[in-house]
Amino acid sequence: MTDRIAATARATASPGTEIVALEPLWGPSSVESYYDGFIAAAAMLDRVATLVSHDLDALVLAGFGEVGREALREQLHVPVVDIAEAAALVAQLLAPRYGVVTCLPRQVGLIRDNLRLAGLLERCASIRALGVDVLDSGADEDATVARFLEEAAHAVADGAEALCLGSAGFTGMATRLSEALGMPVVDGVAAAVTLAESCHRMGLRTSKLTTWSDPIPKERKGWPVSAPEHSGGA
Amino acid sequence: MTDRIAATARATASPGTEIVALEPLWGPSSVESYYDGFIAAAAMLDRVATLVSHDLDALVLAGFGEVGREALREQLHVPVVDIAEAAALVAQLLAPRYGVVTCLPRQVGLIRDNLRLAGLLERCASIRALGVDVLDSGADEDATVARFLEEAAHAVADGAEALCLGSAGFTGMATRLSEALGMPVVDGVAAAVTLAESCHRMGLRTSKLTTWSDPIPKERKGWPVSAPEHSGGA
Amino acid sequence: MTDRIAATARATASPGTEIVALEPLWGPSSVESYYDGFIAAAAMLDRVATLVSHDLDALVLAGFGEVGREALREQLHVPVVDIAEAAALVAQLLAPRYGVVTCLPRQVGLIRDNLRLAGLLERCASIRALGVDVLDSGADEDATVARFLEEAAHAVADGAEALCLGSAGFTGMATRLSEALGMPVVDGVAAAVTLAESCHRMGLRTSKLTTWSDPIPKERKGWPVSAPEHSGGA
Amino acid sequence: MTDRIAATARATASPGTEIVALEPLWGPSSVESYYDGFIAAAAMLDRVATLVSHDLDALVLAGFGEVGREALREQLHVPVVDIAEAAALVAQLLAPRYGVVTCLPRQVGLIRDNLRLAGLLERCASIRALGVDVLDSGADEDATVARFLEEAAHAVADGAEALCLGSAGFTGMATRLSEALGMPVVDGVAAAVTLAESCHRMGLRTSKLTTWSDPIPKERKGWPVSAPEHSGGA
Amino acid sequence: MTDRIAATARATASPGTEIVALEPLWGPSSVESYYDGFIAAAAMLDRVATLVSHDLDALVLAGFGEVGREALREQLHVPVVDIAEAAALVAQLLAPRYGVVTCLPRQVGLIRDNLRLAGLLERCASIRALGVDVLDSGADEDATVARFLEEAAHAVADGAEALCLGSAGFTGMATRLSEALGMPVVDGVAAAVTLAESCHRMGLRTSKLTTWSDPIPKERKGWPVSAPEHSGGA
Amino acid sequence: MTDRIAATARATASPGTEIVALEPLWGPSSVESYYDGFIAAAAMLDRVATLVSHDLDALVLAGFGEVGREALREQLHVPVVDIAEAAALVAQLLAPRYGVVTCLPRQVGLIRDNLRLAGLLERCASIRALGVDVLDSGADEDATVARFLEEAAHAVADGAEALCLGSAGFTGMATRLSEALGMPVVDGVAAAVTLAESCHRMGLRTSKLTTWSDPIPKERKGWPVSAPEHSGGA
Repeated sequence: MTDRIAATARATASPGTEIVALEPLWGPSSVESYYDGFIAAAAMLDRVATLVSHDLDALVLAGFGEVGREALREQLHVPVVDIAEAAALVAQLLAPRYGVVTCLPRQVGLIRDNLRLAGLLERCASIRALGVDVLDSGADEDATVARFLEEAAHAVADGAEALCLGSAGFTGMATRLSEALGMPVVDGVAAAVTLAESCHRMGLRTSKLTTWSDPIPKERKGWPVSAPEHSGGA
Repeated sequence: MTDRIAATARATASPGTEIVALEPLWGPSSVESYYDGFIAAAAMLDRVATLVSHDLDALVLAGFGEVGREALREQLHVPVVDIAEAAALVAQLLAPRYGVVTCLPRQVGLIRDNLRLAGLLERCASIRALGVDVLDSGADEDATVARFLEEAAHAVADGAEALCLGSAGFTGMATRLSEALGMPVVDGVAAAVTLAESCHRMGLRTSKLTTWSDPIPKERKGWPVSAPEHSGGA
Repeated sequence: MTDRIAATARATASPGTEIVALEPLWGPSSVESYYDGFIAAAAMLDRVATLVSHDLDALVLAGFGEVGREALREQLHVPVVDIAEAAALVAQLLAPRYGVVTCLPRQVGLIRDNLRLAGLLERCASIRALGVDVLDSGADEDATVARFLEEAAHAVADGAEALCLGSAGFTGMATRLSEALGMPVVDGVAAAVTLAESCHRMGLRTSKLTTWSDPIPKERKGWPVSAPEHSGGA
Repeated sequence: MTDRIAATARATASPGTEIVALEPLWGPSSVESYYDGFIAAAAMLDRVATLVSHDLDALVLAGFGEVGREALREQLHVPVVDIAEAAALVAQLLAPRYGVVTCLPRQVGLIRDNLRLAGLLERCASIRALGVDVLDSGADEDATVARFLEEAAHAVADGAEALCLGSAGFTGMATRLSEALGMPVVDGVAAAVTLAESCHRMGLRTSKLTTWSDPIPKERKGWPVSAPEHSGGA
Repeated sequence: MTDRIAATARATASPGTEIVALEPLWGPSSVESYYDGFIAAAAMLDRVATLVSHDLDALVLAGFGEVGREALREQLHVPVVDIAEAAALVAQLLAPRYGVVTCLPRQVGLIRDNLRLAGLLERCASIRALGVDVLDSGADEDATVARFLEEAAHAVADGAEALCLGSAGFTGMATRLSEALGMPVVDGVAAAVTLAESCHRMGLRTSKLTTWSDPIPKERKGWPVSAPEHSGGA
Repeated sequence: MTDRIAATARATASPGTEIVALEPLWGPSSVESYYDGFIAAAAMLDRVATLVSHDLDALVLAGFGEVGREALREQLHVPVVDIAEAAALVAQLLAPRYGVVTCLPRQVGLIRDNLRLAGLLERCASIRALGVDVLDSGADEDATVARFLEEAAHAVADGAEALCLGSAGFTGMATRLSEALGMPVVDGVAAAVTLAESCHRMGLRTSKLTTWSDPIPKERKGWPVSAPEHSGGA
């Protein structure tokens, strides 16, 4: 799945932008619950803390309904863009109300929380689930597209006039779905890459004023997990 | 002011993007009220309706707190990005809550309405005004910057951790203000240009599903205003 | 349609109130989109700006989901009452939650925005559309009533316990619909006339404190559109 | 105080409208708390239940922040208009955001709850209190006006551009305050009378569809309180 | 019904907690409307005002969607816990969104208002009604359970993942329903008893700072209703 | 700090309740940021996953503004109570609006997010910070109390009528602060213990219907972190 995400990112990026696909060194193979999400969040923080070189210009979080966004904004100075937030933001430019179609019913609440904290829930008309798990959703694109079209019809009935791909596993299917549906379908990976570039091109970085300022140095026993021998830390 | 807006747009645009600065053919010299805004909105619709060639890839509305955004989305198929919505959207990526500093106290309500309709009010902590009118604000940059810094302090006390330039007349001052304040300051013109490019790069256009579908052909007496001899219309 | 609106207004007005039915001098024959709405808003501002005599006691805007309300409040000192806002306000006195039934699906979002800006969306349970355009809706009252009753049933299922006629073209049908449905049906034209009289009787006029104060005198090229020879302006 | 309320109502009513001032037969001499409000609500229900003749065309509740509004709407078929709801509703026609100035700090929460249930809180910018009790506020008009002007200034700083008299005891002072402040000041008693007339003139009555339908006949021991010998009831 | 409520309360209370079941001395035999609710609220205030001994440690209001909660908080110093608020609070600890199933459709709005004032509406996904009146609902438990299961399925479809028994008449059925549904079902009587004990154990009492401070002594003619010979009062 | 938290928990618990104080095996010594919070969340999940015996009746999360609450609800079947949610919930029973006083300004946003997701933000009038870090706040109780009283005054001015101790480090100071302030001050640790007992006494457990159902078994590389030799998992 990481390869497909990287492929979308590279296909969208401007000339001159280099995409580096990072995976956490430990944790779940996919995120389909808060449980997976909170483990993955720590594993991402760990991954970033143990990077030998930090010369990133921006970080994209490629899990839809990801948690940990705010912590990474504290950990880094460069912009951190979450694909759920990015997809919703772009969808709002294209339609009065948008919907999200995700994999499993249990992810609906997780995505609602993500969008509520992002302040983007008001124009969200619908969050629907295929009933297919994340890894399977990427494996059989035709089946996924067919189920997606069914749920998209429900989302449209709920008032959505643009849709977001509600799983990183759907990446690369937006054009096909958009053509089949006759409405904009936003791929969060692509959206996040362009927004990260936007911030970088404008020279804008995360505010360090108060809430997301650098973590205070303190004892953090056994952290980072994957490289305890490094003096590391934030 | 149009020249300064175009300069910002060109400075931000990707290589290969051509910026065409259009002005309405009639209406107010600046927008500082709903009255000016509604006249300007019609004048913008008129300007677009009478364009000889429509080969735009996206349209940026360069008035902060502009009205008419939704009508232009109906009139065109390409993405329409409003600088107030764009600035707020980018600010939300960089700080938990943002503020807006604009020219006149009467614009505060106008901007609040714009952001409320855009679904971006929840994370807006403050909207403040300099008490200087739009055209003057661009004329004396030092005075504008000095007053801006004073109001920025109030916005920060209200909870803002990033700021938006709340007038197109402030364009070009973001870096200077950001350095003086030690926090991100977003120029809506720049933000809108990058978002318009993002949509274009992803092949995304305005949803024509229901609300923003093409205006229904009908009698529109004396319209477009500036070119009644054209058969025109939407 | 203007005649039918005037007839409702006259039938509702108190003895001694004179109803003057004004039409914009240019613009669309009906308002069914933001596009029409923004053109009509400017045309209304133009119409008021070029009135030879301004001795109105109040202004009623007789388009449902109209835009331009705030601009007219800046332009005039007398109360300006919009029929959508008026209908919703009266409906809220009569039922815990109300619904709106309008002509076309594309108007649903337009009306939602109108009510959101008016701060009246919280008690709105439903906005439904007949799928009939505005001019046709007035032409065949029996057909319109029949379709309205169908959509009213959906609105009631959504939680509405009073309904608003969601188009000026429905004016005059409220009593018939109310009797058929056994619930209050509010005609916005009638409601707005009585609210305008209420304000006038109490000696209340639009606040000129800040947001809706008089437009600032400035160059407004080619404005007003329909009478450039008048020195006019706000 | 009842006399002054009746005087305002008569001064505002249309020719032909008869104002009947009713007082509950028991309960508190003024309402300054939920405790008083809930006793007064039952006493109002009792007063209406024991009216020999019910030929009212509408009922106005003349306590600001009154509770019991919904129960009276169940008890009667004619419109029931609460002065707090009426004042806020009219203020919203005249200004983008309004404020309320009441007697005691403890009433602020009571009024907020009233407006929240009425769905009119979103455009309320401020609720301020004089620190003077209800009966005293009517006794010394000059002192009340002086204190009101001080609190009004705070409300304006909070964003209010129109004000509501937040106590029935202030009735009759609106014109004087409005002139001193240069902004609209709404007297809820006057506003409610005109709204009650509006509903009546349009032939509109309370919805009996579901929520506010007639109370179900059942045993109500010792009720109505003031006339147990009447077979009465709702 | 009072006996069954008391039985639930005693079954839930900690060892050492004494449950005293009080009934108002007058008013309706059940609360199914605002009308009943406002009469019952005054009758509860009257009952408490005429208690010979006030040595309560907490008061539980055992009507679902009860009004009068705030007045009792003014009248007493000990915690006052309403079963609707208590049930919703506990449900929120157990599920992301909860539903309420009540007796009659007309109670839906009453319960919504109760939860809105309690600030607990955001996570409420559904309020459904059986169409059975309160007294009947307790009389035939099997029939009530069967109908409850039907409405529960609708509430789950609306997004509820825990349910509240929406009537005191349902008390004692929670375990049976929870087992049948495979989800938490909260009995508000039980929840309120435990919350009242919680407050008491922590030594916490109602805030008397401003809004809910003791009612101001004043003339309250004929009050308390049931014991006019007592000098009583608040 | 864990000892002081355990002491409060034991002092509040009912007879027969055993309090087991668990600390994560790795991670930060205190939580003052999202960064610390997300590391601590994973460390708590790890700690629970590696418990030899799971015979808990409920879990209390004793960090104020903690993240990870929803993941623990997935991981376990017994109730999981977060001290921020518990404190706010109890405060709402005692006052119309409450405030929170925490340690550092950067925690204000973190706590706001926690309460927003808990659906408890509407009645929150104020969140204030002492400007003292978490570990120091517990070390010098007199200094902490003095600073708390200053910030409490600001919270009261913002409209709070009850306060929550906004840090686990403040545990044990509630009675002293409450007496000094003359208003309820809620200790979240105590509140959470009583709520956990409440749920347990009622036989209520976390809903496993959809959102918080058990984590799906899958590959989770290197997890749990602290005991990879255990077969473990969720």
